[in-house]
Amino acid sequence: MKTRLDCIPCFLRQALGVARATTNDINIHRRVLNEVAGLIPELPLEITPPEIAQKVYRLTYQITGNNDPYQTEKRKANERALTLYPYLKKAVADSNEPLLAASKLAIGGNSIDLGPTSRYASIDSIVAPALADELNISDYESFCNSVNESSRILYLGDNAGEILFDRILIEEIKQIKEISVDFVVRESPIINDATMADARYVGLDRVANLISSGSDAPATILSQCSDKMLELYYTADMIIAKGQGNFESLSEEEGNIFFLLKAKCEVIAKMLGVGIGDAVLKKQTLSLSHPVL
Amino acid sequence: MKTRLDCIPCFLRQALGVARATTNDINIHRRVLNEVAGLIPELPLEITPPEIAQKVYRLTYQITGNNDPYQTEKRKANERALTLYPYLKKAVADSNEPLLAASKLAIGGNSIDLGPTSRYASIDSIVAPALADELNISDYESFCNSVNESSRILYLGDNAGEILFDRILIEEIKQIKEISVDFVVRESPIINDATMADARYVGLDRVANLISSGSDAPATILSQCSDKMLELYYTADMIIAKGQGNFESLSEEEGNIFFLLKAKCEVIAKMLGVGIGDAVLKKQTLSLSHPVL
Repeated sequence: MKTRLDCIPCFLRQALGVARATTNDINIHRRVLNEVAGLIPELPLEITPPEIAQKVYRLTYQITGNNDPYQTEKRKANERALTLYPYLKKAVADSNEPLLAASKLAIGGNSIDLGPTSRYASIDSIVAPALADELNISDYESFCNSVNESSRILYLGDNAGEILFDRILIEEIKQIKEISVDFVVRESPIINDATMADARYVGLDRVANLISSGSDAPATILSQCSDKMLELYYTADMIIAKGQGNFESLSEEEGNIFFLLKAKCEVIAKMLGVGIGDAVLKKQTLSLSHPVL
Repeated sequence: MKTRLDCIPCFLRQALGVARATTNDINIHRRVLNEVAGLIPELPLEITPPEIAQKVYRLTYQITGNNDPYQTEKRKANERALTLYPYLKKAVADSNEPLLAASKLAIGGNSIDLGPTSRYASIDSIVAPALADELNISDYESFCNSVNESSRILYLGDNAGEILFDRILIEEIKQIKEISVDFVVRESPIINDATMADARYVGLDRVANLISSGSDAPATILSQCSDKMLELYYTADMIIAKGQGNFESLSEEEGNIFFLLKAKCEVIAKMLGVGIGDAVLKKQTLSLSHPVL
């Protein structure tokens, strides 16, 4: 999707949040706002929101001198999610439809995001509603069929903490059938997105082949991805794309993509026809003549 | 209060909302965003948010060539509020505490604001919760005492539509005692704030002396007010200040001021220790040695 004008004030708000997470120096907060404001007239709106976010975060990291301001939050999210692992496994095992339960948890885990808002509800509080509530958009039947027909899945991860929930889903998929999963992380820290170290920390290396996207974008910008990643992308039987960033960057790309996310801002909620906070499992329906969005 | 850095992305969002209310031309929307972004590095944060809003709206009106983009919304709000007049009068008369009921309605009417958000719930839907819910901050006892001890009240109005609710409160005050009320409107249109024409339309001229602040600020910026207005301000026994803008501009001014408002953004809600959407009737408690906020 292209960036909307509504995204521009949001980027400014995000930059301020990052500056505050890094330092208490209000002169630096102000400088970040001023310099990000200076970017605005030059921002090309024909690119996707995460491509602009990448520019905004890079500039902010450069000004603050800290290229991983959410390092502590990421570590805590991974640790907390890991402690929930036995409970989540039992909840899935006890469910009437374990794959659906695991999918719902993976979507619920996408709440652990410091981009659209500067805080999220506690990780513990995500679990019960994720399991109990219906999906607001559900292409679950298609998702099941695709899992059954696939022998290789490319799984595009999103945030630290969330990736433990992704591990649960991958393990559940592997219960159903023998399948190879490649799990993609960001090349370097951006927002609270998961990198290789995060993926290893939550044990994703035990259930998937880990690979970096080759880019620090908080999304899957194909033009920035490594050749290895692109090879996996174009040859996978099924792509599971987690989170708003991956949706924003791939919503106009063709493929057997399933977007699993929580809608977290008005632009995305409106685009999907859901409310903010709603849970989405959506199959990519793009054809060249009928763009989905 | 001084402007917070959080206000800056919000001004940008408001400018976009105004541009969209004026024209469908996305090139103009973009130009507004770019030019308001250009103001950011020069914005002095030691002034109040409505003083900055005044600069932002003036610039936006200049770019769009429309200095009253919410004219239709204002007219509709006045019309709709007027149709509710008999119902509101009866609700107040039937209440056990008519002055409290009228105060709650006046605070509820402050929801009719196109600054902090680009839309509000329907005017009809404001009434029942305004009457039923407790005030989240209530200096109502002090408010009653002040009404009883005053012979001249200066009433600082806020938005079109809302001012019909203010008329109800003024009529209720006048039921209690013979009292003179001066009602202040903005000098010229800004956001959906009430001007002289709006006040006359809802019949405020029947219950109060109408006066312009002398300024187009969406607030009461004393340094911009006319001599006549300042004379009334400094000699009134009691000042009723409606809405966030009047609160933001007078929160550090001394006086027997009662702020009646709905908290509409995180900055103000946090400052007041309430939630967004909460109803506030707060007496000014400023003394020179202990600033209230």
